[in-house]
Amino acid sequence: MPNAPITRGDGARRRVLDAALRVLDEHGIAGFTMEAVARRAGASKATVYRHWPTTNALLVDAMDSTYRPQPVPDTGNVHTDVAQLLTMFADTLSNTPFPRLLAAYMDAAERDPALQTLHADLTGRRREPLLTVLRRARDRGQLARDRDLDLTVDLLAAPLFYRRFVAHRPITPALIDDIIASVLR
Amino acid sequence: MPNAPITRGDGARRRVLDAALRVLDEHGIAGFTMEAVARRAGASKATVYRHWPTTNALLVDAMDSTYRPQPVPDTGNVHTDVAQLLTMFADTLSNTPFPRLLAAYMDAAERDPALQTLHADLTGRRREPLLTVLRRARDRGQLARDRDLDLTVDLLAAPLFYRRFVAHRPITPALIDDIIASVLR
Repeated sequence: MPNAPITRGDGARRRVLDAALRVLDEHGIAGFTMEAVARRAGASKATVYRHWPTTNALLVDAMDSTYRPQPVPDTGNVHTDVAQLLTMFADTLSNTPFPRLLAAYMDAAERDPALQTLHADLTGRRREPLLTVLRRARDRGQLARDRDLDLTVDLLAAPLFYRRFVAHRPITPALIDDIIASVLR
Repeated sequence: MPNAPITRGDGARRRVLDAALRVLDEHGIAGFTMEAVARRAGASKATVYRHWPTTNALLVDAMDSTYRPQPVPDTGNVHTDVAQLLTMFADTLSNTPFPRLLAAYMDAAERDPALQTLHADLTGRRREPLLTVLRRARDRGQLARDRDLDLTVDLLAAPLFYRRFVAHRPITPALIDDIIASVLR
């Protein structure tokens, strides 16, 4: 409900989510407790528990809140559409708390299979805009009928994660163009 | 020195590295202290500090020790060579402590630029076998002269990391074949 009016409850919710992000940012997953988040938010533990029954639920909501849903571009050119989505994502990886949060989350998920399932769901939702522009391009005849769109999303999105978390190399506009040219060739 | 005789000192070094892996595995980066590792290894803190001046140095050595250097295949067929390397890596991601260690490391690196530099170096070394088989294939005329080999390594390796840490989906032999067919096409 992006246009719903902000109520007193929403404000408290937002404050707790912001506090959750700051706690994660500074202390990683090890310091991410309901107590620490409540203290940082200036809220009672009861307030936090009212919205989120577990730290896992709070963690997932905090991740979602740092990652704005991507509008689906529809320029008629698949390269342009994909470039817009990857550029927005590169910006999220460079200029928001999202990557620190994701790193903390990936570490936690190694020790908690429930977090892996939640992350898989979340990733599935985030893949949708790319899948949609690829599907439309296929319908327009810009991509081969038999192209595996799911694999194509992997090949387009994965290098950005890899560059950010594994290779620690910059994600430039030229790189994004090269990835798209190579994958959609 | 893979064939050097194991001395008393090597045994102690190995024992500390094993302890470091177990501490990381159980407690993540937050519990990864010289004290905890020494206690787990049944060694004195002085012994640990003699080999590694910092927890960062110990962490990097522990990561290196879980990841055996990949022999470079040379079958004359680039698809086969790349498939061998990716299959070995998929095995490392599924059947060794490496991914848990990497997840802990990625989280730590978000808060410590020195770790990012160390990880970039380590990743550079691990990319070498893939780069070598691609270079040989290009020299044999199996890949276009003007292909960007560095980008090709990104496109081949990144989906495995992405599947393991972000999408939490299986890495099957069929997927590896599809990635190679798509990227080397």
